[in-house]
Amino acid sequence: MAVYTEITDEELAAFLARYDIGRVLSFKGIAEGVENSNFLLHTDAGFFILTLYEKRVNEADLPFFLGLLEHLSVKGLSCPQPVKARDGALLGRLADRPAAVVTFLDGLWPRRPEVKHCAGVGEALARLHRAGADFPMRRANALSVAGWAPLFRAAEARADEVLPGLAVAIAEELSHLERAWPQGLPEGVIHADLFPDNVFFLGDRLSGLIDFYFACTDAFAYDLAICLNAWCFEPDGAFNITKGMAMTAAYERVHRLTPAEVAALPTLARGAALRFLLTRLVDWLNVPAGAMVRPKDPLEYVRKLRFHQKVANAREYGLLA
Amino acid sequence: MAVYTEITDEELAAFLARYDIGRVLSFKGIAEGVENSNFLLHTDAGFFILTLYEKRVNEADLPFFLGLLEHLSVKGLSCPQPVKARDGALLGRLADRPAAVVTFLDGLWPRRPEVKHCAGVGEALARLHRAGADFPMRRANALSVAGWAPLFRAAEARADEVLPGLAVAIAEELSHLERAWPQGLPEGVIHADLFPDNVFFLGDRLSGLIDFYFACTDAFAYDLAICLNAWCFEPDGAFNITKGMAMTAAYERVHRLTPAEVAALPTLARGAALRFLLTRLVDWLNVPAGAMVRPKDPLEYVRKLRFHQKVANAREYGLLA
Repeated sequence: MAVYTEITDEELAAFLARYDIGRVLSFKGIAEGVENSNFLLHTDAGFFILTLYEKRVNEADLPFFLGLLEHLSVKGLSCPQPVKARDGALLGRLADRPAAVVTFLDGLWPRRPEVKHCAGVGEALARLHRAGADFPMRRANALSVAGWAPLFRAAEARADEVLPGLAVAIAEELSHLERAWPQGLPEGVIHADLFPDNVFFLGDRLSGLIDFYFACTDAFAYDLAICLNAWCFEPDGAFNITKGMAMTAAYERVHRLTPAEVAALPTLARGAALRFLLTRLVDWLNVPAGAMVRPKDPLEYVRKLRFHQKVANAREYGLLA
Repeated sequence: MAVYTEITDEELAAFLARYDIGRVLSFKGIAEGVENSNFLLHTDAGFFILTLYEKRVNEADLPFFLGLLEHLSVKGLSCPQPVKARDGALLGRLADRPAAVVTFLDGLWPRRPEVKHCAGVGEALARLHRAGADFPMRRANALSVAGWAPLFRAAEARADEVLPGLAVAIAEELSHLERAWPQGLPEGVIHADLFPDNVFFLGDRLSGLIDFYFACTDAFAYDLAICLNAWCFEPDGAFNITKGMAMTAAYERVHRLTPAEVAALPTLARGAALRFLLTRLVDWLNVPAGAMVRPKDPLEYVRKLRFHQKVANAREYGLLA
């Protein structure tokens, strides 16, 4: 939930004068998304989302993100399509920030994901991996194994405020993953943050994927491991193997996992759990005064990590390999 | 900025099954409004606003608010029109809260009000007062002079944390207003909260008024005094008499003020300043932990109150009486 930046009518009019989408009829901040400021924009040409990129997004990455959305749209994947300014630019500036206009995507994100949603996500994830295969740009995953130690250092001293013993537990897990992290797996464009609030459904049909601002070049199976973490645990902390089975089977119907990917899945799932544990922990310990964003609970990912640490092989996630 | 309540797909579908507005296509929290949770709702029938009434709104008042919007819409005033359920009800329940669907109103609220906006508001306020004249329901103004002492008691002990000497200054002002508050002025339905974020414009044309959840039966001129406070001061704290002149003249072209109203205006303006000072002060001193709403600065209204205390007559607001 976030609208960080106030925009005056004059600034908005000057920005939109570069586009062929008519006159502004309405402009409202949207209470979703934590990285950027998002606005619902109604013009003579219809409804759009206007995004202002706040400080957490590196401006140098924006051509990758917007180019990727353009590429995936052309490939037929349902995702926000960047609207080009008259000069062809995907990116502009508004209120002293980079800004873009994308198409409005209908759909509802599932507040309580069910098995059918997990299957939909599995299939869409595989289609995304295929559609991104010939996208020519690359972006390193700053939040993969090499990025975790710096995050941990930022939180280590105060980690035990959140849970006694947490600093040692993270240090041991990090040490394990730095040794065991799989290399040479098939890779390409991954979403890297495909949580339920980034997946829209209309009825039972998946209608689109949004929020590609963590997308990067990394192992496909790591993206699947992130989704297993994000979609297949119940509110009581238990892993739901029926959901895991639905997700992985749907993924494999579009894009078959290699034996190396299957073997690596438990390690990748531990890594994914540690990645979200660490970013949530840093956010939790650094809530600014007057913050309008409530940080997500890092302990949810401590519990998920503990589950993965006991997993012996990918069958425990529902893979029928 | 506020979305307080999470709604599941199932709850939403069950709620909307009572309406003839088709299937839900999209549903997004809006980062505007501090009293209620507001959602942009897209269905086969178009765009709507769905509002969940949170604890600050008294459920017993909702028939007044929704009936008023219906009445004003029928009279041709541009405001959100409640959408009736199939059984004719304006009000339903969603996520254990009262909830209503209203039409989506195009327009932008002026982030930096200019003289033309002040004129537009003056005219619209007078039209609202006329359109509400035959609305049969009444609602007392809980935030008029009798309501200020209880508010002050809730903030008195800690008022000087905000500004040294503030408690004594408020006590003296309150004592003055309780003696001097005008009686017997022309009254009817007033908006009572017509700040810039509640007034939409398309270009220079006022396109609608929103957020009637402080509307009540009170003196018309008090509503004008609230608008003088809300629209006619500059960011540096100075009163802009050109704006005051534009607003009051536009008001009087539709609805002429009586000599008693003109004479009372400085007192009403002091009262309006104290009312917003007190509610902001209480909010400022009672920000809950983890709050996602940033309270508004009470000191802005301390400065406005000081201005009004020095006003000798309504000519200083731009009235040409």
